Amino acid sequence: MSVIDAVSATAAGLVVAINGSETELSWRWVRDHGEDQESFDPTTKQRRVYAINPESPQPAMRAELSVIDGTPIVCIIWPESPEQTWISQSTITDLLDPRPPSARTCWHRPQETAVTKGNVSDVLTNDAALSAWVGDIADFGFGVLGGFQGGHNEVTALARRIGYPQSTIFGTTWDLASDIDAHDDTAYTQTFLAPHTDGTYAHEAPGLQMFCCTERSGTGGESVIVDGFAIAETLRTEHAEDFEVLTSVSVPGHYIEPGVELRTSRPAIRLDDHGNIVQISMNNYDRSPMHLPSGDMDAFYRAYGQLHEFANDRSRWMSIRLEPGDVLINDNWRVLHGREAYTGGRRFVGCYLNHSDLESRMRTLGV
Amino acid sequence: MSVIDAVSATAAGLVVAINGSETELSWRWVRDHGEDQESFDPTTKQRRVYAINPESPQPAMRAELSVIDGTPIVCIIWPESPEQTWISQSTITDLLDPRPPSARTCWHRPQETAVTKGNVSDVLTNDAALSAWVGDIADFGFGVLGGFQGGHNEVTALARRIGYPQSTIFGTTWDLASDIDAHDDTAYTQTFLAPHTDGTYAHEAPGLQMFCCTERSGTGGESVIVDGFAIAETLRTEHAEDFEVLTSVSVPGHYIEPGVELRTSRPAIRLDDHGNIVQISMNNYDRSPMHLPSGDMDAFYRAYGQLHEFANDRSRWMSIRLEPGDVLINDNWRVLHGREAYTGGRRFVGCYLNHSDLESRMRTLGV
Repeated sequence: MSVIDAVSATAAGLVVAINGSETELSWRWVRDHGEDQESFDPTTKQRRVYAINPESPQPAMRAELSVIDGTPIVCIIWPESPEQTWISQSTITDLLDPRPPSARTCWHRPQETAVTKGNVSDVLTNDAALSAWVGDIADFGFGVLGGFQGGHNEVTALARRIGYPQSTIFGTTWDLASDIDAHDDTAYTQTFLAPHTDGTYAHEAPGLQMFCCTERSGTGGESVIVDGFAIAETLRTEHAEDFEVLTSVSVPGHYIEPGVELRTSRPAIRLDDHGNIVQISMNNYDRSPMHLPSGDMDAFYRAYGQLHEFANDRSRWMSIRLEPGDVLINDNWRVLHGREAYTGGRRFVGCYLNHSDLESRMRTLGV
Repeated sequence: MSVIDAVSATAAGLVVAINGSETELSWRWVRDHGEDQESFDPTTKQRRVYAINPESPQPAMRAELSVIDGTPIVCIIWPESPEQTWISQSTITDLLDPRPPSARTCWHRPQETAVTKGNVSDVLTNDAALSAWVGDIADFGFGVLGGFQGGHNEVTALARRIGYPQSTIFGTTWDLASDIDAHDDTAYTQTFLAPHTDGTYAHEAPGLQMFCCTERSGTGGESVIVDGFAIAETLRTEHAEDFEVLTSVSVPGHYIEPGVELRTSRPAIRLDDHGNIVQISMNNYDRSPMHLPSGDMDAFYRAYGQLHEFANDRSRWMSIRLEPGDVLINDNWRVLHGREAYTGGRRFVGCYLNHSDLESRMRTLGV
C-alpha cells in the first residue's frame, strides 16, 4: 500500500509526494474531496459542500500530514482560520497510485477451475459458506451447491444471500422445462443450446442466473459453461484485430413475443476505461439484422466467427450434469452457458440477479 | 418509407438499389439474414442457420423482387435448386436507408410541455389511457395521473401496465417519507434536494421511478423535474467542449451502508453509436472521489459546473405539488428530479422500473 511522503501548499494547489513523484491537486479539487464533518456526511457518505462554483477557492495557508482517530489524514488549513478540511490519506493514494485490480483466475480448460461444491443450508445460515460460494463466482464465474429443496420461495431465500431476484418477462422466479410453453424460446425445448449469454436484448442484462434442479431423468442435458473472459484475453493477445472489432462494433439483439419487443445493442466484449474486460455478450440466436460498410461487415463476421469458434470448442467446456438438489449459479457478464440435448425430464426453478448487487456482495464479503 | 428499386446477383453478393444508390450485400450476409422457414423460426424470432462458417457460401444463381403472403420480399435462388432464401424488403431498407429517429420534444421551459393528467383507474383498464400516459413519458420524460388509492399492491398493479417493479436495497416497492430511517440518504429528510438522477452507483440505473402520493400537509415540497436531454442538446450546440468532456469522462458514484457497497461509473451524458443522447446520469451527492490529470480535472469541473448550472436554473424547472392520489412517473434516463424543502407530512409509495421494459412498452403501444 502506498503512503504519502510529504504534502505542501502552493498558490495553485496541494502538492502530494508519493514514492518520489509529486502531483498537484487544485484547491477546488481539495474542497470537492473534503471528508471532515463540514464537507461530508459520515452517515450518508454524501457530499455536503458544493465545490463546483465558477470562482476558484482561495489557496490554503498550510497543509500537513496528521492522524485523526487513528486515520492518517491530510489536514488543510485555510486563511479563514480556524476552518480546516481533511482528507484521508488512503483516499488520495487510492486515486493517485491505485492498487492493481485483483487478478481474475481466467480458465481455458475445465481442470483449471477449482470450484468447490457447497451446501444450500450452509450458505443460508453461515457467512463463511456464503463467502466460499461468492468467492467461486468471483474467481471462476460460477458456483455449485447441493442440497436444494423446495421451489420458488426457497430460490428467493437463496438468491437473497447475494442480491434480489429481478422481475422480467420470465417472472421474478421461473420454472424451466421443455413442457412449458409460456415462452417461444429455444431454451424451452430439448435441443442442444450452444453457449451464449442471456439478455443480449436488454440494457439490464442479468448479472447472475441461478438454476436449481428439481427433476432429472433420461440422458444428456449436461449444463455447459465457458469462460468468456479467458476467450476474450486469448483474442486480445492472439487475434488483436478481431478483439478490436468485438470491443467496438455494437451487436443488436431482440426478444419479441406478443406484447413484448425488447431491443438493445452492445459490443460482444465490453471494456472499461482502463481496457479491463467487464462484460461478454453473445447470443447468436437472438442477434438482430445488422449492416456495416462492406469491409467492416466482413471483419465482423470473421471476428464473431472466431469468438464463436472458441465458445464452441468443447475442450474449453466445463460440463456438469445437475441432479435434483443441485444449484448452478453463473456470472452472466463473464461466462457463456449452454446445455447438451437431452431426453426425459429436466426441470429447474431459478432467477436472475443484477451484477451491481453481486459486486456489492463481493465487496462487503471481501472476496 | 424507402423501397427497393432493383436487385441482382453477382459473384460477390446481392446488389440492392435504393433511391438510385447501389449496395452490395455479401452472400454470407444474405445467408445470415434469411427470414424463410429454413433460416428463421417465425415463432421464436430466432435464427435457425449459422452463417458464420469460415467458408463463404456459393454465390446465388438469381435474385428477384417478389411478394409472399402480401409481404414484399427479396427472393434468392441458390445453385442447389430448389433451395431459396427470402428476406423481407423492409428488413433491407431499414438497414440500408433507415428512417430518422422520431424527434423527441425536448423542453427548456415548463410551458413547452403538454403533459395531460390521466386517471389511475383508466390506465389500469383502458389501453388508450395507457397509451396517453406512456406517450407523455416518451415525449416529455414524465407523466402525471390522479386518482391513486391504496398502497404497495396498487403501486405494483399500476407499474405492471408498463413493466415490473425492480428489487433494490430500497425494496421492490417502497415508502418515502422523512420519518423513515431505513436508509441514511438525503432523500429521507425534509431538506431541498437539487435535481439529480437516481442510481448513479448502479450498472442498472432505474429507467423509471414512480411516486404515488398518499399524504401531504404543510408547506413546500413541490416535486421538480428538468429535461436533461434539452440541457445536453444545449451543451452540444453552445458549449461543445463541455459536451465533449461530459460524454467521455466516466464519473464514479457510490452507495454505502452496512452490508451494501454499490459502485459504478459512467459519463454524465451517454451517447449511442450514432451520437444520439440515450442517458443522463448526474448526482453530485453520490459522486465518488476521482482524479484526472490536472488539465482534465479543471475541464471536468468546468463542464460539470455548467451542467449543474443548467440543471439548477429554476426557469427550466417543471414544478408540481403532488397531493394525495397524484402519481408522478419520471424517465430517470432523461429527466433529473428534485424537490423543494418542506414542512409537515409528505408520503409516497413507489417503485423503480427498467428502461428496457419502458422502451418495449413504447414499441408495442406504438407511441
